[in-house]
Order: sequence, then C-alpha cells, then structure tokens
Amino acid sequence: QEIKKETTRINQYGQEVDAVPLKTEAQDGFIKWFSEDGNYKMWMDNRVQLDGYMFSNDALNELGNGFMIRRMRFAIKAEFWKNWYGEIDLDFESSATEIKDAYLKYTPDSKKWDFKAGHFKEGYGMETTTTSRYLLFMERSFASTFDPSRHLGFQVNSYGKKLLLIGGVHFNTVGDAEEVEFTKDANKDNGKDEGYSLTGRAVWTPINNTTRLLHVGAAATYRTPKTHWEDGAYRISTRSHSAVNRKKFLDTDDISGVDNVFGYTFELAGKYNGFMFQGEYKEHNVNMIEGVDASFKGYYAQAAYLLRGGNHNYNTKEGEFTRITPGSDKGDVELALRYDYIDLNDFDASIYGGSAEGYSVGLNYYVNPNIKFMANYVYHNHDRYADGKGKLFVGKDADGNLTKDWSNVYDADGKGGDDYGQFSIRLEVNF
Amino acid sequence: QEIKKETTRINQYGQEVDAVPLKTEAQDGFIKWFSEDGNYKMWMDNRVQLDGYMFSNDALNELGNGFMIRRMRFAIKAEFWKNWYGEIDLDFESSATEIKDAYLKYTPDSKKWDFKAGHFKEGYGMETTTTSRYLLFMERSFASTFDPSRHLGFQVNSYGKKLLLIGGVHFNTVGDAEEVEFTKDANKDNGKDEGYSLTGRAVWTPINNTTRLLHVGAAATYRTPKTHWEDGAYRISTRSHSAVNRKKFLDTDDISGVDNVFGYTFELAGKYNGFMFQGEYKEHNVNMIEGVDASFKGYYAQAAYLLRGGNHNYNTKEGEFTRITPGSDKGDVELALRYDYIDLNDFDASIYGGSAEGYSVGLNYYVNPNIKFMANYVYHNHDRYADGKGKLFVGKDADGNLTKDWSNVYDADGKGGDDYGQFSIRLEVNF
Amino acid sequence: QEIKKETTRINQYGQEVDAVPLKTEAQDGFIKWFSEDGNYKMWMDNRVQLDGYMFSNDALNELGNGFMIRRMRFAIKAEFWKNWYGEIDLDFESSATEIKDAYLKYTPDSKKWDFKAGHFKEGYGMETTTTSRYLLFMERSFASTFDPSRHLGFQVNSYGKKLLLIGGVHFNTVGDAEEVEFTKDANKDNGKDEGYSLTGRAVWTPINNTTRLLHVGAAATYRTPKTHWEDGAYRISTRSHSAVNRKKFLDTDDISGVDNVFGYTFELAGKYNGFMFQGEYKEHNVNMIEGVDASFKGYYAQAAYLLRGGNHNYNTKEGEFTRITPGSDKGDVELALRYDYIDLNDFDASIYGGSAEGYSVGLNYYVNPNIKFMANYVYHNHDRYADGKGKLFVGKDADGNLTKDWSNVYDADGKGGDDYGQFSIRLEVNF
Repeated sequence: QEIKKETTRINQYGQEVDAVPLKTEAQDGFIKWFSEDGNYKMWMDNRVQLDGYMFSNDALNELGNGFMIRRMRFAIKAEFWKNWYGEIDLDFESSATEIKDAYLKYTPDSKKWDFKAGHFKEGYGMETTTTSRYLLFMERSFASTFDPSRHLGFQVNSYGKKLLLIGGVHFNTVGDAEEVEFTKDANKDNGKDEGYSLTGRAVWTPINNTTRLLHVGAAATYRTPKTHWEDGAYRISTRSHSAVNRKKFLDTDDISGVDNVFGYTFELAGKYNGFMFQGEYKEHNVNMIEGVDASFKGYYAQAAYLLRGGNHNYNTKEGEFTRITPGSDKGDVELALRYDYIDLNDFDASIYGGSAEGYSVGLNYYVNPNIKFMANYVYHNHDRYADGKGKLFVGKDADGNLTKDWSNVYDADGKGGDDYGQFSIRLEVNF
Repeated sequence: QEIKKETTRINQYGQEVDAVPLKTEAQDGFIKWFSEDGNYKMWMDNRVQLDGYMFSNDALNELGNGFMIRRMRFAIKAEFWKNWYGEIDLDFESSATEIKDAYLKYTPDSKKWDFKAGHFKEGYGMETTTTSRYLLFMERSFASTFDPSRHLGFQVNSYGKKLLLIGGVHFNTVGDAEEVEFTKDANKDNGKDEGYSLTGRAVWTPINNTTRLLHVGAAATYRTPKTHWEDGAYRISTRSHSAVNRKKFLDTDDISGVDNVFGYTFELAGKYNGFMFQGEYKEHNVNMIEGVDASFKGYYAQAAYLLRGGNHNYNTKEGEFTRITPGSDKGDVELALRYDYIDLNDFDASIYGGSAEGYSVGLNYYVNPNIKFMANYVYHNHDRYADGKGKLFVGKDADGNLTKDWSNVYDADGKGGDDYGQFSIRLEVNF
Repeated sequence: QEIKKETTRINQYGQEVDAVPLKTEAQDGFIKWFSEDGNYKMWMDNRVQLDGYMFSNDALNELGNGFMIRRMRFAIKAEFWKNWYGEIDLDFESSATEIKDAYLKYTPDSKKWDFKAGHFKEGYGMETTTTSRYLLFMERSFASTFDPSRHLGFQVNSYGKKLLLIGGVHFNTVGDAEEVEFTKDANKDNGKDEGYSLTGRAVWTPINNTTRLLHVGAAATYRTPKTHWEDGAYRISTRSHSAVNRKKFLDTDDISGVDNVFGYTFELAGKYNGFMFQGEYKEHNVNMIEGVDASFKGYYAQAAYLLRGGNHNYNTKEGEFTRITPGSDKGDVELALRYDYIDLNDFDASIYGGSAEGYSVGLNYYVNPNIKFMANYVYHNHDRYADGKGKLFVGKDADGNLTKDWSNVYDADGKGGDDYGQFSIRLEVNF
C-alpha cells in the first residue's frame, strides 16, 4: 500500500492500525473527508426531490393531482488504498427501501480502465445512466423504459483519449423488493438459474472541451429471461412522464415464452457555449422461443440553453452530461425543450401496448450546487392502443360515449387515445 | 454567495469547485462539522429508544407485556450557502422504513422568517411538534391523535419579537408505507386529487427568559379528504399510551362521506426556575357531506420539576420545550405529572369511539445529553364505549360475566370500561 | 463528566453547549472522528457483499444458480462521555430493512465489565457472535441455526484476566419485519406476554498472545415460547450454506406445544502462528408441555492457514476471532477447511427434519482491510429425511424414479438424500 503511515495506533481489539489524518472540506456545498495524498476520500450523496403534478381537465380519464417525495436518497461513497472504491446508495421513497448502487470498484494506477462488481447501472442508455440529480427534465423520456438500469454484475470501463468503452455481464436486479421476491420464489419453486445479460456501450467524443462537445455513442444488450420477471414474463410499460399519475397508458402486458431480448441504442449529443442537445434512438427486440418475435422502438431529442451564461459540463468517464457551471453568483436558469416518442405496438406479434408522443418544455433554476428548482409542462399524444391493458378510455364511440375499446373508437386514424397536458414542479435539495 | 473561497479544487469531473475547510467538534456529545464563517454546518441525529411495558393483571382484557425498539432514527441535517437547509430523517422501527422529515428550507439574512418545502410536521399541536427526544412522558397524551403531524407541503414561519406565526398548506403523508399505497391506489383507480389542508398556529410569549416563561398559543386546521385515508374514510384512534399494547380501546372506526375536518387547539405553558407546565385543549369537528356532523375533543395538563437544580429550555423558534439544562455534573432527575382526557363519542352522530382519562406519573433521568432514562406509570379509566370496535371487554353483565357489548354492562353510569395501570421504562441513546 | 471544556458555544436554541474539537483519521482505511482525550469517538461500519453460487448438475433437485447482495449494511457507532456507547446498525439486503444492532452500552472506568440494553446478539455460539465481516467461510456452519443471534434485552459482560463471562435476559427479536408482525399480532389478538430467554456464556483463554491461543468456552440458553414465533410454534431450519439457493432441505417444520427450549454449546479454538482452528458442539432440546421432548444436535470443526505469513487476531472482549493481520503489503491469502454436521431428526419425537454433513474448502484473499474476496466449495451429504417438508426429492424408488417420500427410497441406509456440490464466490467491501 502506498499510503504513508503517519501514525500507528492500537485499535479496540489490540491490533496496530495505520492512522492517516484526514481533512474535512465543504466542496461546492458537499462535505468531503480526504487524506493529503488523495488516497483516501469519503463523501455523501443525500437527496430529496419534492414533486407536484397538475393534469389538464380535458383528459378522457380522471387524473389525480398530487405531491410526492420522488426520491429520498442516502449514499456514502469512499475511495481507499488509492485504487479501491466502495459505495452504498439507498432510496427510501414511498417509505420503502430500494438498494440503488452497492458495489466495489478497482482502478489501476494508470486510470485507463476500471472494474466494478455489485449492483449498479448497466452501460446502456445515456439518459438512464445520468444520475437523477442532473436530469434535464423531471422524468426521463418514454424510451428510457427500454434501458435496463441497475442490475447485479461485473463491468469493465475503458477510458481512451476520445473513446469510452463499457462492457458488462449482468444478472438480476435487487433494487425492488418485489422483484427480489420473484427471484427467490423462482429459485425455491423451480430451481431456475437467474439468467444473464451482456451489455456494451461505446462513446466517441471527437470534440470535448469546456465550451464545445460532440458525442456519438452506441450501445447494445442481449438478455436471457431473468427470474426477477413477474411470472417469467417480459413486460415494458411506462407512466408517461409522471410518478404521481399511477395510470400506465403504455403497457405491453406480459409477454410469455421469451427466448431473449436484444436492444440497441444510438446516441448523439453536443454542446456549444451555453447550448446543449442530446438524443437517442432505441430499438428493442423480444425474440420468442416460438411464434412471432416482437419489436418496439422509441427516441427523443432534447436541447437546453443556460440563460445567465453558464455552461453544461460533460463527464467524459461516464459519457453523459453532469452538473452545470452556473454563469452568475445567483446561479443560473435553463430553458429546455424535448420531443420524445415510443411505440409499444407490434401488430404482427399481436401486441397493442400503445404508442405516444410527448412535447416537453422545462425551466430549471440552479440556485446553488445544493438547490435546484424545476418546472415542466408536457403534452401527451397517446394513440388509441394506449389503453392501460383495457382499463383506460381511449376515445369516443359512434354514439359519442367514452370507450375503453380501441376498435370502437370513431375518430380518424391517428386521432383517438387520451391526449392531455400536465404541469409539474420539483424542489430538490442535494447534500 | 457569501462563502469566502478558501481554496479552489478540481473535482472528479474536471469541474472547479469551491473548497471551504470545515472544523469538527463534539458539541454536547453530538458531532458537528462547520465552516469558520458558520455558512456551512452538518450534523446527525441518531436515536434508539428501548421501551418495556408491564400491564396490571386486573384489566378486563388480556394485555401482553413486552419490550420493543420504539424508535430507531437516523437523520442527516445540513445548512449551506448561509440561507439554505436540507434534511433527511428516517425511522426504522419494526424493521420497516418510515420517512420522517425530508425537506428543504430557506431562511433570509434577516432570519425573521423561513420557508419550508417537503415532508415535515404541520404547525398544529405543541406536544406533537415537540421531537420525541424531548418528550416529558414516554408517549404523548391521548389528544395528540387529533394532530396531523407530518405531511407533504409548504410552510412559512414568521419570528416576531414575542410572536411566532406558522402557516402552511399540506397534502398527503408519506411517512407510512401503507398510507402511500392508499394514495397511489386512489390515484390509479379513481384519478382522485389527493386533497389538501390549511394549517396555522400562533404563539405569544409575553415572558420568555432563562428562568421564566409564559406561552399562550392557538392553532387551527382545515382539511379536505385525503387519498391516503384507508377506503376514503376518516378515523381517529389511539393505543392508550403504549406502543407495546396493540389493543386500540379508543377508535371511532371509519367515518365515510366526510366533507372536511376542522380542528383547533389552545395551548398554555410556562416555567418558573426548575418547574414547568404545559396544557392543550383540542376540538376536532368532522363535517359530513350529508348527515350529522361529528365532534370530538380532548385535553391534557402536565407539569414537571427538575430535582437537581436544572431548568427547562424553551425553543422560541418552534414554540415548544426543548432539551433541559441539567443542574449538576451528574445530570438531572425530573418528576412529572399528567392528567389527560379524550372523548371520541358523539352520540348524536352515532359514533361510539369511547372516552378515557389517563393519570400519569413520570420519572426522567437525564444522565448526559446523549443518554436518558424514563419510567412511567399510567392509570387508564376507559369508558364502556372504549371497546375497540366491539372486540374488547368493557364490563360485566347482570350475570357477572365479561361482556364486549356496552349496552349489557351492568355497572352504574361512569363505571364500566376497562380500567388498568401500566408501568413502563425507556432507555434512550441520542447521538 | 470528565470531558474538558475546550470551548463553549451557543447552539441553535440559545443553549450553551460544550464543544470539544475532534480529529479525523482513516484508521486502516476506516474513517474515525475522536477527541484528543479519547472520550468521544465516532465511526461507521458499511458493508457490501456480492455473492454468486453455482450448483452441481447431479443434484436430485433443480438448484438455481445466481448472484445476490448477501448483505448491505450501514452502521454508525459512537462512544461519548467516556463511559457510554450507542449504535445503530441496519441491513438493507433484498431491498428490505432489518434492524441489526440498536443498543446503548455503559462501561465503567475500570473497564472490567459493561452493560448493554437494546437489540444485539445473545451471548451464545462463537460462530454466530462473530461478525459476518470476519467469517472464515461465506456462510456459517449448519449448527449455527441453533444460535439465537440478535434479540431485545439486557446483557452484562465481565472481563477477567483469562475469563470472559456473558449473561443476559432477552425478549423478542425485531430484526425481521415478519417476526415483528407476529409479535404485534400475538399482543393484539391474545394479549400474550412475549416470552424471555436467559443466556450465558463463559470463555477461558489460558493461552492468549500474538502468536498462540487456546480458547475453551461453553454457553447455555433457556427460552420460553416467544410471540415472534410464527403461529406460536418453534422451528429450526437451514438453507445448507447458501442464501441464493432457497430450498430448505433441513427443516423440523412447526413444533407446537413447546414449554421451553434449552440449548448448550461447547467451544474449542486456538491458533499457532498463521494457523487457527475453531469448533463447536451444540445440543438443542425442545421440551414440550406434554408429549415427547425433542432433541437436536450439530457440530463443526474448521481450520485455516494464512499463506503469506499473516496471523489471526483474537478479540478477547468478545471471545472470537477478528480481522487478520496480513503477512505482506499485498495482503494475505488464507486456505480454510471445514467439516460440519447437523441432525434435525428425532424419531422418538416423530420429527424428521433431516440430517446433513458438509465438507467445505475455502480460499480467502484479504486484499487490504477494506477489500476481501472469498471462494468456497462445499459438498453436501443430506440424508433421506432432508426433504424440505416433503417437497424435495430424496432418492430413487425401486423403479428408479425420483421420489420425495423417504420411505420409498431404495438405497441402502446411509445413502439416499440429495447430495451435491456448490461453488461460490464473494466480493466484499467494508468501509
């Protein structure tokens, strides 16, 4: 170990321990403990997001307004012995417990690559791998529902001059108590192996400096059935940019008899002074043991501008945008636009999960590094198949009555489906 | 920002960050990190309460003795950029998770008011807003069950010379996983708005110095039906000063068809050297959409004396008693008395929730700022309607047999109901 | 209090508080805050264990391979006012919450004894009282299922020159949300007292220095029925050295009508330079109110050698092995062997819980004080009664078909039962 032994102390068990004095600082408002030589560091990542949602009254379905704690996070992170890193990260939203990150990482002295083991995000989906602290809009786009997010497994990250390569093998998720129960029950009742996924991502950044960025990326994932799937079935669904609204318009319902899932995504992003843009195109193929394979797709494009002269920082090691640098002592204000789309219909495969467009406008106020306010307006254009598995109104029939049966919707094609606007705010504190 | 930039560092993403050195102290046994200028502060609030209860054998109903972890709290609190504050506070009692405080606060330089947003206690009920660390008795009085405690929302506190004003608008609670499920289900199934409450409190302290205090307060709350109510019904119940005993003698049962709830409370408190007293009168009106409105009430009066010369401190900013200052190096001992009463009967509205008196004696030993021992004896006088919704014995019938039907109780009026004593201890550690 | 008052500060409530400056150090990679006089100390104990299991294909029953977060722990511990100690310790494995340690402790100046109150491990079972951080094998031996582990209660530890004495009275456990519900329901429905246990342990260490140790111990526990038992019944079961495999071959099923449980254990352990050994013999008697009492037993013997010159440290105050001292700057490697056995059959009492042998080989790599890798191979020899309450195959019948009925197993006595090997790895980070 390259830690220099400043002092030797005797611990409570009579063992000699190396004691390295640590300094304490508030770095941009976040507490950090660290050794002079930088080989030991510890910090926290605590977060509260208070979200409120109001839905337009002209929706076909009743949508309930409300407030919620969207996230309540507690995390401790530490680097030690120069090359090692450990993290525990939990979310307590809804007074439940969810393991978020729980892993160890090894980085060699060269810092050209690292190796992770534990529970963390698979390298897939630029938007999904971006921490919720730094999201441009309150909720990620429709198509992020394709992204696997956190799973148990192993991952190697390679840091080239302009090239980031991420490859991992992953297993089940443990971030949801219900899914952990499915895993345990499948093991107990059937003795099934839990399945695996192979996921890779490549990011090329030919231009990457303080004021300009060009980011081109691609990722792919191959996934065998996992035992954390409910009833062994695959399913994609999303709540249309809100965690307050519990109605899931878009939902493929259970897809049973899956042989594997293969998804890929293309990323394009950039910045120019206070302006940034980011977009992804995603396709998700569900390959069946027998019968017709299904295919779904989605994409989004978003752009933002910092009004007070700040600029968007890019995290080269993770291939994503990170915290902004504000343009003034009073923080900064950001105007953001997004168009996103998802298509969970595959008529050949007899899957009518619905498709939808979202038009989003956002205003973000970065008061200081610890405080952020967000206001979003999103207009949804759901199609007539976005019926929450037959439970939601999708249009009017020939008699002008609301119907939940898309085949009875009297509107012209391309019309139909529940279209509505929503206004939302977030008050966020990070420390 | 008024933080002076002591040092500039480069963070892991290549961003320049302001680094302010922090000092670390144990302040009265609690760890605290802070900057020299006082603009950054961070501290913790951890707590374990081990409670044990023994019930008298002459109760009509079998009451089970036992021990429990009454509270196991973990909290991190921080002030940053001089005017901002954030907090996460969790309880893990019963190996469950409960969000307690989760909010951000803004205080202007004048410090004459502040603004809170998130999940925290509504400004109602002097006893309920007092932290469980500093309670005079192990459990709050009967009538505290009227107080709303923590809900999502926004609150303004105004600090006058002798006047404290608190006003807030609140929504649902997220401090109980079951209630969060009710909220989500109501949204999903019915698309109902979650309801709101308007709550205000005023406290006048004409006398307020180290040795003397006179506190006069009043609060009121107007509440529309909330979606976190089970089955959309309002209900008031209490476990009669014990969390070990799970029998709820006092329970209005579900009150359906509520238009709104309106409650108010009057507070009177004071101190004189080592002596303190505190009392509240509360009335709670449940106004129906149609049919007969119901009204409930309760009150308590308690007094305490510190035997070793210490005195009770008053927190002017929250309008409540806080940690005592012990009279000796060996801590202090406190003798406490309480009478409390609640009436959940409204015969006109056909609600037989029961009424009860409690006679309490308490002995508290403040060993040091981190350690507190409590011993309580409470004698309960429940009336014959305090039958736990027909599940508990409330007296003897004409044949001398135990009956759960109050109309069969042969005792004279004012007698009947299960009357019993309980002895309890608490060992508490705060750090 | 003997803390010297370095500074006096005014806290947020206007109270004078004693402020003692604290130092911060990384001690062997673990952060610690402490006062110069040693009267105040605070530290953390965070842990992630990533486990993966692969089972041999020739098992009679399908066993599912998989990964899991075996433990995700977060703990804060503090000593204050010289004689006092408090701790909160939680596990979030499976995205659930489990209270582990939650207690306060008093140690007099003599340090010859201490007193604990709260939720912590009963003094029984050398292997069970050893923290999971320092276990020799990934999972404790079969017979550890007899050990009570953590319960609410009170305990006195006495530290003699060569004699450690531990005695405690204990009540229910709160470390499992389901068991807490059983406790609450038993109180609510029946008003039952929660039961108690009396547990004592004595350890004699005639030889105990850096390189040599001889440890001889014994413990006993007397237990009345606890209300946290499911359906009021006693039950012993184990998952055969794996938390990934959910099939419980060994299981006594519910034993109803228990008057008390009496268990005892003998411990023998020692070390010689880099070599260590440890073994326990345990017997567990379930005494019935009426009918035939049942008796179960188990034992294990394990030994290990550090290949790079390190040695095993012994924690005299807890009577168990603790963290090793590595023999080189590159950490140390340990080779470990274990034989263990359990017998949950008592044919006289008509209990066919099964018996089993385990043959274990382990390889541990202590990279540094924060990082540990483990690899285990275990071969199980279950008997024909180890049928998971009739749900698992235990052999082949006369026709050569798999059967779950032990009376149909055609093999010779001593054969039969599901025998299989398992290979597992653990990546562990502590900080």
